[in-house]
Amino acid sequence: MPHIKLPEGYYGISSLFQYSPETALPMRLLAERILRKESLLSNFERETIAAFVSSLNECEYCTNSHTAIAKAANEAEQEIVDAVIKDYKSAPINDLMKALLTIAKKVQQDAKKVLQKDIELALSNGATDEMIHDTVLIAAAFCMYNKYVDGLATVPIQDVSLYNEEAQIIKERGYDKKETF
Amino acid sequence: MPHIKLPEGYYGISSLFQYSPETALPMRLLAERILRKESLLSNFERETIAAFVSSLNECEYCTNSHTAIAKAANEAEQEIVDAVIKDYKSAPINDLMKALLTIAKKVQQDAKKVLQKDIELALSNGATDEMIHDTVLIAAAFCMYNKYVDGLATVPIQDVSLYNEEAQIIKERGYDKKETF
Repeated sequence: MPHIKLPEGYYGISSLFQYSPETALPMRLLAERILRKESLLSNFERETIAAFVSSLNECEYCTNSHTAIAKAANEAEQEIVDAVIKDYKSAPINDLMKALLTIAKKVQQDAKKVLQKDIELALSNGATDEMIHDTVLIAAAFCMYNKYVDGLATVPIQDVSLYNEEAQIIKERGYDKKETF
Repeated sequence: MPHIKLPEGYYGISSLFQYSPETALPMRLLAERILRKESLLSNFERETIAAFVSSLNECEYCTNSHTAIAKAANEAEQEIVDAVIKDYKSAPINDLMKALLTIAKKVQQDAKKVLQKDIELALSNGATDEMIHDTVLIAAAFCMYNKYVDGLATVPIQDVSLYNEEAQIIKERGYDKKETF
């Protein structure tokens, strides 16, 4: 049961966005910009980072939600998302993505743990400053979304197939439309 | 030295907002709404929560920055901010604020640690759902700002008096004006 009285019929962050539309607006806009605006990292890669960080924070709603959104973004490589969450170091992804996920994991744990050698490993595998920036910001932002969702004990979606429906809506409309979720 | 090449002459999150104006916009707007919009918690109380969470994350720039902003918001009670950061349980604040800081601290550590008994303690000391919501969101959002600032190893302001100048500008203009910082 949520820690505060939230509108019924909504789950996870959607119930918080309904409760507090004024703070929802910048949070939706930020999600749109870090996950879907033009970037050197694909939408699929960025949603995979979001799902990965959410899994490290053990946020059920956000992990399921962004796993489904990542899979919807790249239906041919759906198994990659689960493999990353299970053990990203042995997942079938390139060394660049592994280096970025290492940075994301350190940001989730303690951002001061991101060392120059982690950055150098990413750069030597083809990362740009922008990719490193985007990875750190996605990891930091998902710590916020995850903590917001779990700190208020929101209810995750029970019927897992609904995450796929939600993912299709976000794929079509984006995060920043009020009517999306 | 920052992990990526950032504009010179800027510090902490300002250097990141200069680097990435497109993501800065929703992050500024969120800060304005969680710290300065009308709320049952005063601007001083909310800035104190922000400074407290930043200190738990050991984010030098954000701790100094929001300590100065909190002090600028309530010049008569400046010593409260330092006392909260040093040991909030013995600080000269009421039991409601202590209960909210306990919730904020748990959100910072692991949001799942916020238990029904923590909420009940806050409610029994006069908290409303809105106060609890705002406290959790401020704590979660400052984990984002802190991790963004430290994950990219931005440079804190060296001359501590400049935090006070910055605080006066934010007090007058708010966070959401592009020219603020």
